[in-house]
Order: sequence, then structure tokens, then C-alpha cells
Amino acid sequence: MLGNFKYSNPTKLYFGEDSLSSLREELGNYGPTVLLTYGGGSIKRNGIYEQVTAILGEAGKHVVELSGVMPNPTAEKLREGAELARTCGADLILAVGGGSTIDYAKGVSVAAHYGGNAWETFYKHQQDPAPDARILPIGAVLTMVGTGSEMNGGSVITNHAEGLKIGKVFDERVMPRFAILNPRFTMTLPRYQMVAGIFDIMSHLLEQYFSGEDDNTSDYLNEGLQRSLIAASRKAVTNPDDYEARSNIMWTATWALNTLLKCAKLQDWMVHMIGQAIGAHTDATHGMTLAAVSIPYYHHICRYGLPKFARWAQAVWGVRPEGKTEERIAFDGIDALEGWMREIGVVLSSSELGVTEENIEAIADSTLLLPTGYHHLTREEVIDILRDSL
Amino acid sequence: MLGNFKYSNPTKLYFGEDSLSSLREELGNYGPTVLLTYGGGSIKRNGIYEQVTAILGEAGKHVVELSGVMPNPTAEKLREGAELARTCGADLILAVGGGSTIDYAKGVSVAAHYGGNAWETFYKHQQDPAPDARILPIGAVLTMVGTGSEMNGGSVITNHAEGLKIGKVFDERVMPRFAILNPRFTMTLPRYQMVAGIFDIMSHLLEQYFSGEDDNTSDYLNEGLQRSLIAASRKAVTNPDDYEARSNIMWTATWALNTLLKCAKLQDWMVHMIGQAIGAHTDATHGMTLAAVSIPYYHHICRYGLPKFARWAQAVWGVRPEGKTEERIAFDGIDALEGWMREIGVVLSSSELGVTEENIEAIADSTLLLPTGYHHLTREEVIDILRDSL
Repeated sequence: MLGNFKYSNPTKLYFGEDSLSSLREELGNYGPTVLLTYGGGSIKRNGIYEQVTAILGEAGKHVVELSGVMPNPTAEKLREGAELARTCGADLILAVGGGSTIDYAKGVSVAAHYGGNAWETFYKHQQDPAPDARILPIGAVLTMVGTGSEMNGGSVITNHAEGLKIGKVFDERVMPRFAILNPRFTMTLPRYQMVAGIFDIMSHLLEQYFSGEDDNTSDYLNEGLQRSLIAASRKAVTNPDDYEARSNIMWTATWALNTLLKCAKLQDWMVHMIGQAIGAHTDATHGMTLAAVSIPYYHHICRYGLPKFARWAQAVWGVRPEGKTEERIAFDGIDALEGWMREIGVVLSSSELGVTEENIEAIADSTLLLPTGYHHLTREEVIDILRDSL
Repeated sequence: MLGNFKYSNPTKLYFGEDSLSSLREELGNYGPTVLLTYGGGSIKRNGIYEQVTAILGEAGKHVVELSGVMPNPTAEKLREGAELARTCGADLILAVGGGSTIDYAKGVSVAAHYGGNAWETFYKHQQDPAPDARILPIGAVLTMVGTGSEMNGGSVITNHAEGLKIGKVFDERVMPRFAILNPRFTMTLPRYQMVAGIFDIMSHLLEQYFSGEDDNTSDYLNEGLQRSLIAASRKAVTNPDDYEARSNIMWTATWALNTLLKCAKLQDWMVHMIGQAIGAHTDATHGMTLAAVSIPYYHHICRYGLPKFARWAQAVWGVRPEGKTEERIAFDGIDALEGWMREIGVVLSSSELGVTEENIEAIADSTLLLPTGYHHLTREEVIDILRDSL
């Protein structure tokens, strides 16, 4: 734990099968108008919409609906939501859905009373809301796991016209005030979405882990979360109705990317940068874009962080070191990761997602090259990794 | 993660070598009168008192001193502090010290404007402050690590006349609003106190870990924190000036006993119950009382939770399972724990702390028998464990 940092996370979490009952109590803290934000209507089919609106009705709230939030929420949709939030005088944005919906709610919360172009200011130019900015409070009812958006300030918005998918990490003012985590709500999710979410979690863990030279408590916590995720995901793919496994995955997701693991840590995030560029060009499912490039990426950077890869192989995957070089141990770890990915059934080839020899250069051009991690990629290396991922 | 729970931790943490500079900013949130609480004066010798009072002076605060907080703060001292806090009109209690000082500040914060006998109500009868109770806000500058008091609601008070040392876990209203964690401030601590603190942390981890049958993300996080503590403590006892090691220990202590690991977990806490009874009779250092009884305790309960002990032996201590019974693996884990305790130099015999054949029965009578963990101890079993610990 080198360096100075502040840790503060104000989000209240209500976890468990009965957690939605806490919504009633929380609603008492906000004014009458609730902007109810959700996606394509799956919450209507699985009954969550009905349960949530019943509680809103009992609480006497004036509900304004903002539906149709897409898996990769767009800058256009953000404009639409901000306009609605402002004109209806929303006192609370209640996001019901997965990371996309909560990410979107964060964008709306800062854009509603902001005069300018929120996409340009907050995402493209990475500015922070002014100290006296009016930011609408957010509550979340989580129905998909993966992004950790329920307990952090992260928000990703896509601009297809510009070929950009950009994440912004907002401060505490934008973080959900409360989040309701009911593992049962995640159980109607199709398997493809479930395993994409699981890999998103793993990627959050790996991208915070593979950076920095110092010995750090965060990395030990990170290894614990990886081991929890591996154990629970194996149970969940065998039996998606295993409540215990699904609940461990949900809790792991929250702690994998709230504000804890990054404390005093250098981070990497190049898998997310490449994955987001693929997403901007193909609209593929986020977790799958990460899965498709991870093995080529880690093979590529492994040699620059061998000691950490070798530690990881042993601590997380139980690789035995006897009689092996550090490089062999590290590669055995990456092989174990790949084996687990095959086991849970994530996409291992970016061709399946719409990446082709023809659009690789455009994707590389949209990839933000961060000066982080064990090695700083060039555009040419991104192209190599994308080609390996086909 | 079975069951329903709420997670919410409002404490802001400022960590690092420069963290005290954040005190200035935090003081702006509180009224003019600060009750400055500390122990026996070591903060005057090491210069921390001077740094803190300089910042209080610059902020124009009216400072009232409440010093002489003892390692095991007493019910009498609590009465004295509450009276002072009330009469001086304290707006903030600033605790500068270790867990004892912060535990004490929590007692004072609820007792100051409470009419009755705070020891009886909150500790002996384990009641909660009334919903509309006036509770003074607390800030902490940590100079010793171990208890985790800086980010939780726990508070232990001792009544020597009654032979009782009782912990109370208060709710969020009593938790420190902010805590300043500067690893350098812990470096002047004598080795005895340092290793006692390290064992206190380990005991918090073990007592939350050894209970429950379910697979739980908390246990994986717990294993990660144990591994971090073992690695960092080995470095710290070799070189107490190793900033990185001391900082990892400090951060591990906070997360070992804030509100995270207990989520959806059954817990044990019998080592603390026996240790606190020893403390009430001998006034011995808290962490050493836990160390003295741990090996006999775990040998005693191991057979009731064999699968978990065997998992722990492998995951935390790297015990190899090949060709061994589950019991052998478990015992190898306890042996590894004992080896590490010898290595860091904690007390392994309760005789050293003043436990004798003569006072064992009285200590057992003061031991709260909790219906928790893998096995519910009887008074006779407590006596056996105490005898084994001599």
C-alpha cells in the first residue's frame, strides 16, 4: 500500500432474496417524482417491473418511464434521457437493470441539469461535473451482474457515429445512493449474458491485478475474489439455479469493481480499451469482447510482468512450480485461465463478434492507448493482438 | 452469500504518509469545540500530538483535552469522559491513538447526552441508543493497528469491579465519520504492541472464518487478508521500519474488522470472549490474551469443523494434502499457525499474562459463552482450554 489515497464509498447495499422490500424505506428519502429507467422490457416478462412499480405506487410516487436503454447506451439516448429528467422534474432516477442501465442513469444524472453537450464534456473530454453542479440521485435494482456499476462511479457511453465507446469514472456524487441486489433477479438471464457477465468480473479483477511491482493487500483481496468467482462460476454453469453460486457471483462482481481493489494500485485496463473499441464497431456484448481478446493480450504482455504472472498462476490456479521456469509457470496460469473460459463457455474468437481482417485497423484506431500496465501497447501491437484474437 | 443483509459503511478513510493533511479539510465540517482524546502521552513523545494540535489551532478550534485513556478503558473513565463532553459542549470527538482510544471515544459519543448509566445500558445490557439519541460525531487519527475500530461500530469497555470486559457493536451513527491512517504513526510502537496488534488482526480474521457451512465470497476475501497479513508481518518483524509492510498491515487491519467480512457469515468470537475475560482479570494486552488461548482453542474445536480447517490449511498456509487424512491436513494448518506465531513472537502461554491455576475458574466464570462457531463451549471446556494455555 504505497502512496496516499482516500477511500470512501457511500452506496448502501441491500442484498438477498428479500432485499427489494428495502426499496419502500429508501423511497422515503426522495421527492415525489421518480424517473424509472430500464432496458428492453425483459423486466416486464420476469415480473420485476410489476414488483417495483407496485412499491412505487404504494409510496405515492409520480413515476415517469424512460425505457429502451440499449446494452451499449448511446450518446443520443443520453440526450433524450437528460431532456426527460429535466422536464419532468425528477427527484430520483431509479435504474432497474444491469450495468448498462445504471451506467446510463449516471449519465442522465449529470446531464439533466447541465446546459452543454454531456457526451462531449464528461465522456469525450473526461471533465468532472462542477463542484456546484446539480446532480440527480440514483437508486438501482440490479438484474444482471458484471459491471459493478451499482457501487461505483463508472459509466460507459457509446457514440456509434464517432466510432467511440468511452468510460468515465464520476465521483461519489454520481454513485448510486442505494442498490438492491437480489440474486434471484439475475436467474432469468440467458446463459450467454450470464457468462459474459462472469467474464466481465474476471476482467475487472485481472486488469487491476496485472500492474505494479509493490506488495499490496489489494492484490491478496483480488486473488481471493478470483478464487471465489472461479468456484462459483463452475457451479453456476452446471446449475444456473444454484442460488448460493449466483449470490457469490453477484457479491464478487460488486467488490471486484467498487472503489476498494484499486486503492494504492496501478492498473492496466487495456483489455477494456480494446474490448470497448470492438463494441463500438460491432455492438457485441461487452463481456464477450473482453473474453475474445484476453488470451492473446495476456500472452503478449506476460513477459513484461513475469513475477506477477507466476505468483498469480500459483495463488489463483494452483499451478505447481516445481521444476519449472518462471515463464513456464506464468504460461501455465494463462492456460488455466483459458481452460476455465472454455469450461464456462465464453467467446474465444473475435470473429464470432464481427471482427474481421477488414475492420481491425479501424478498431485499433478507436482503441485508447493507456500508458498503464506492465507494457504500453502501440497501435501495431493492438493490431497484432486483434489478429491473434480472430 | 446466503441470507439477507445490508452493507453500508460511511467512514471516510485517508491513507498514507501525507494523510494527516486531510484533517484540516475535515474539521471544517464540525463546530468549534473539539474534545481531543488520547492515551498515556506517547503521542506527545513521538510528535503526533504537536502535529494534530497545530492543525486544530490553525482551524481556530476550541480544544478540550481528555487524556489518560488506558489500554483497557474503564467504565469509570467512560463516566468521566461523558461528563466532560457534555459540559464542554463538544462538537466533535477527535480520538488520537489505537483501538482503545477510539473504542473509548465511541462510548463517550453515546454517553455524553444520555441521562442514565451508559455502562449498564449499552455494554452490560447491550441496548442500542434510541433512534433520536444525540450522538457526538467522532474522527480518528490512528497510531496503532489491530482492532479495526477506525471503520466499525465496535467498542469494548472494562469494569474491573465487576470483572467484566464487554464489547458492544454500535450502528453507523457511532462509527467514525473519518479516520486518518498514516503507517508512519505506527512505527514508534514497541515491538510487543506491534505483534500483539498483528495477532489481534489474525484473530479477527480467524474468528469470522471458522463458522458456517456455506460457500461464501467473504471466506475467500478472508483468506486473501490472512495471506497478506502473514507476508507483511514476516517483513515487519524482520524490519519494523519497512513502510510497505507496515502499511499493508494497517490496511489489512481495517478490512479485517470493518463491516465487510461478516456479510452473510456466521461468526465464532469465542477466542475474544476468553481473551477478554483474561483481560478483565489481568489487564494484559488484548492481542496477547488472544494469542495465548488460540492454539488450545483451535485444537479443541478443530474436529467439529474439519472440512473448513482443511481448506484453510491449504489455501492460507500452503499445506500439501497428498496422502493425508482431512484431520492431518487440518492439524498441519494449526501447526503452521503456531509456527508463524513463534516467528513473530507473540505470547503462547497464558501464565506469562497472569493466568494461574487459582484464577482459571474465575476467568471461566467471566467468559461469555456464545452459541456460535462450530462447537458451543461449556464452562468446563473453557476451563480445559485455559488449563491447556498455561
